[in-house]
Amino acid sequence: MKYPNSNKVYVRSNHSAAHRGMSLEEDINKSNRYYLTNDIAVVYKKPTPITIVKVDYPRRSAARITEAYFKVPSTTDYNGIFKGKYLDFEAKECESKTSFPFSSIHTHQIRHLSDVLKHGAIAFIILRMTCYDKDFLIKANDFIAFYNSGGRKSLPYAWIEKNGFEIPYSFQKPCDYLAVAEKVFKI
Amino acid sequence: MKYPNSNKVYVRSNHSAAHRGMSLEEDINKSNRYYLTNDIAVVYKKPTPITIVKVDYPRRSAARITEAYFKVPSTTDYNGIFKGKYLDFEAKECESKTSFPFSSIHTHQIRHLSDVLKHGAIAFIILRMTCYDKDFLIKANDFIAFYNSGGRKSLPYAWIEKNGFEIPYSFQKPCDYLAVAEKVFKI
Repeated sequence: MKYPNSNKVYVRSNHSAAHRGMSLEEDINKSNRYYLTNDIAVVYKKPTPITIVKVDYPRRSAARITEAYFKVPSTTDYNGIFKGKYLDFEAKECESKTSFPFSSIHTHQIRHLSDVLKHGAIAFIILRMTCYDKDFLIKANDFIAFYNSGGRKSLPYAWIEKNGFEIPYSFQKPCDYLAVAEKVFKI
Repeated sequence: MKYPNSNKVYVRSNHSAAHRGMSLEEDINKSNRYYLTNDIAVVYKKPTPITIVKVDYPRRSAARITEAYFKVPSTTDYNGIFKGKYLDFEAKECESKTSFPFSSIHTHQIRHLSDVLKHGAIAFIILRMTCYDKDFLIKANDFIAFYNSGGRKSLPYAWIEKNGFEIPYSFQKPCDYLAVAEKVFKI
């Protein structure tokens, strides 16, 4: 629709447009807080792994890290417990319209997903396709099978639409991945 | 025994004396690596949570964090999966001979243990009593019950010996807590 005295075109917002501007990480953290306070699940993002080189201990104040470096993570960013099950996932935002490049995910993280799957975890990837303003849950099993099939350097969007499960949005649960996981994995 | 020409008294080392000098964290990490490479379990220590304030991005080299502070952890340090079960624990070294002070463990961490228990986790505390060179597994349930019983500011050693389960040591698994957890929790 168009407003008078304006050249701006206001698009009627669909459900998901509401979370534009918030990062996927913030949306997942907010959903996790909802799950926690409502006794649904306990899931946390792991802190960013860093190597600390120098720390100052000034008198009467908090220790201050003055030299540190980011480390390549050996695991995924999120894990926790839902209905007694161990849950493990990685979350990624993708700006491309056509595919999700494998270079965006560390090989360590793929190996970790495959490790936890062997032990019976509920494991997946959450992919936010920013161009389409859609979040998808992709089973780690499916992702790894495609990844290992060789020849491809990315996950085509057509594949994501076909094999992924769209994650609903709500104000309190801006990335309500458990609503999907519950059905997909029959938890 | 006494050696000739020496005033030093050499004590015959028992099994556990071998890990003196190694920290509990190193011993647990080494055990976790054994569990991982032998397909027994997938358990990791979470990175230390910090708040990053300043980062330098020098050309042609890695980003360098120049100001950061330690944060109070909102969860325990370790979690993972063992035989399909979600596992969660905190590890502490205690130098006192008589008791483990509750001030050594954050209230956030106790609340977290209680949260994951509600959802069916295998949850515990690993306590290294350095004076006795012994590691104990204490069920989170037992710990929380005593903690909430009020009036005490620490866990007496007599209580630890009675309610804790001693964790065996081996070269490859210097803190083989799963050997104990398996029996105690009947996993």
